Amino acid sequence: MKCGNGIEARQVNELFINIDPIQAGGRLTADAMKAVVAYGDGYSVCDNCRKPNRLDYISKPPIAQFHKDVAAWLNMDAMRTVPGARRGFQAVAQTYVGKGEPVLLTSLSHYTEFLAIEEAGGIAREIPADGHKLVTPDAAATKIEEVKREFGRPPVLAFIDHVDYQYGNMHDVAGIAKVAHQYDIPVLYNGAYTVGILPVDGKALGVDFVAGSGHKSMAAPAPSGILAATAERASEVFRTTSIIGDVTQRKFGIKEPEMMGCTLMGATLVGMMASFPHVKERVKHFDRELENQRIVMDALLSIEGTKCLSEYPRKHTMTRIDTTASFDKVAETHKKRGYYLSSALEEHGITGVIPGATKVWKFNTYGTTKKQALHLAGAFVAIARENGIAIKE
Amino acid sequence: MKCGNGIEARQVNELFINIDPIQAGGRLTADAMKAVVAYGDGYSVCDNCRKPNRLDYISKPPIAQFHKDVAAWLNMDAMRTVPGARRGFQAVAQTYVGKGEPVLLTSLSHYTEFLAIEEAGGIAREIPADGHKLVTPDAAATKIEEVKREFGRPPVLAFIDHVDYQYGNMHDVAGIAKVAHQYDIPVLYNGAYTVGILPVDGKALGVDFVAGSGHKSMAAPAPSGILAATAERASEVFRTTSIIGDVTQRKFGIKEPEMMGCTLMGATLVGMMASFPHVKERVKHFDRELENQRIVMDALLSIEGTKCLSEYPRKHTMTRIDTTASFDKVAETHKKRGYYLSSALEEHGITGVIPGATKVWKFNTYGTTKKQALHLAGAFVAIARENGIAIKE
Repeated sequence: MKCGNGIEARQVNELFINIDPIQAGGRLTADAMKAVVAYGDGYSVCDNCRKPNRLDYISKPPIAQFHKDVAAWLNMDAMRTVPGARRGFQAVAQTYVGKGEPVLLTSLSHYTEFLAIEEAGGIAREIPADGHKLVTPDAAATKIEEVKREFGRPPVLAFIDHVDYQYGNMHDVAGIAKVAHQYDIPVLYNGAYTVGILPVDGKALGVDFVAGSGHKSMAAPAPSGILAATAERASEVFRTTSIIGDVTQRKFGIKEPEMMGCTLMGATLVGMMASFPHVKERVKHFDRELENQRIVMDALLSIEGTKCLSEYPRKHTMTRIDTTASFDKVAETHKKRGYYLSSALEEHGITGVIPGATKVWKFNTYGTTKKQALHLAGAFVAIARENGIAIKE
Repeated sequence: MKCGNGIEARQVNELFINIDPIQAGGRLTADAMKAVVAYGDGYSVCDNCRKPNRLDYISKPPIAQFHKDVAAWLNMDAMRTVPGARRGFQAVAQTYVGKGEPVLLTSLSHYTEFLAIEEAGGIAREIPADGHKLVTPDAAATKIEEVKREFGRPPVLAFIDHVDYQYGNMHDVAGIAKVAHQYDIPVLYNGAYTVGILPVDGKALGVDFVAGSGHKSMAAPAPSGILAATAERASEVFRTTSIIGDVTQRKFGIKEPEMMGCTLMGATLVGMMASFPHVKERVKHFDRELENQRIVMDALLSIEGTKCLSEYPRKHTMTRIDTTASFDKVAETHKKRGYYLSSALEEHGITGVIPGATKVWKFNTYGTTKKQALHLAGAFVAIARENGIAIKE
């Protein structure tokens, strides 16, 4: 089936249980799918745009209310939508980071945080994770002191991922923010794996900014995301324009330069809005998600030689495992080589493991039902058995 | 009909002929609508992402080919997708503009160009339009000399809108680019109203960059757009990352900092791709669009007191008119006041004129059939007649 010249219609989530590490939280809800068709045209949300002509003031569809609701939900003072969490990082970096100034992130930070620092001309300094692949407040304090010695000043900004993309480990953002604030360093909480997945309370975390990803964790089309801020920081990052046309003396009202004016429109925005009630509800039931993760994890760990590289017990559904001493041993002699695993999973109706990967790989059970979790668990054990790998009873 | 909690499904283009000035070129094609559902999940396009792990290398769906096709279509050397033309302006401004440096644009430039300059710390200098609301190469030359006197150096960058958002007038970009290049000023061609609407040949125009808007003129969901560049400029704006993690020694491959890594995904990207064959075809028939515009324009100008504020004959379908001496006279005494016009248009099945506007307003006939153009022409004349405004025969 085609959806355009040479473009095969995608049916991954219709035909398979999908455990792709980055796709699980971004699958559209049925309401979002309706919204992307009804509001497919970008400027559709502008039908009822009136003075002062800014996206977050539009009341029909209820965009203004959505902005208030998301800010309140995250216990922050202001929120803007952005074309992906990374564009939130960029806006914050452009506001606080000058050429050659040090910025704090972690040894598990996502590449987009590095790019935001690089574009702003800053220098990245990583807080090292410990032996358990956790970033601690103590390590943050030590690193800040190191930066002070190196640059003669503390970092101008800190990006801290609550749950990192490498291990899905949960780091003590509240503790790190407390340390950072002793040096007056603004803290951006990267919630790409948490906002829309589990409850997030910005004030309780004591952070200055909360960034979230629509397409990673809020069941919204890409590119979409949110940047929330405290009132103090909102006045800095969401400041309004002050540029003037020298000939026309034009000013540009309440447009915000770091947002480049209006941000999301049409399918991305209304898709995120349509999913929001479902997202608000699902974060309350993250315990069920962890329980399903445990069912699959237990099965994987029952396969002789398999190791969990993420913190354990798991606090997030996205997990990194090492099957070098289990599934990879089979790959050495299998006629399909490493591809046998994804191929066998596919026969069980499972997709999302990188084809060919049998050593270190990630998976995410988020959004599976208990029945699907049991199916996943059974499939991994069956594939191991079929290939002569011992199962611990 | 709802498409989510409190979100009324939009049916503007199903129920009306829509002459909204900014919506006409962004309406999705049927293929794009199929694509936004099939590829609604953002990371859907990442199913087959393999090394070197960058969006424009993915071959299934055919994203890599799309990048080549668009660059060739615009007669430029490289193309990247961006979350709206404005994010292209931002990337270019961040590359060339330092704090306090002058940037050239025009007295008809869009606010997003000003914001891009402001965010980069630059100073905006407008080339004044002449009495016909046209920006000329001579005026550009004069302004560059003024800037040189004021700043002791020429502008570091020029943003030139081929067709401006205020009047829909067509400016001599090729002539202005020639002047700018005598001072080694890189020129960004803002094609928000042209790329996807009429033929654009970047090399013939002699510009360094071509920016286009997906949701304004390429029948794609928002936020989407393209930034094309010459080979020389591509190596500057699309340079790859050089930042390194100080603890992990991580590098980030061929990701591009000005793009913030991968840009568009899912609905926005595949929507733009699905519409592209239709867009390529429609730009060849812009003469038909101008003919339909003329039918409506002639009818409006037959209404006593109505003036065309845009250049005339029209070279673009987006047009600014002044009905202060025609439709606005009626508003003075009409019980619906200025709202009578949009209300009467609605009775004729027409939408897109700002409710209440009877003095100076814009409309865009792009995408109408001849039959619809005749209907629009007839409706304007009928509304004038009904309200006692004289019609010139």
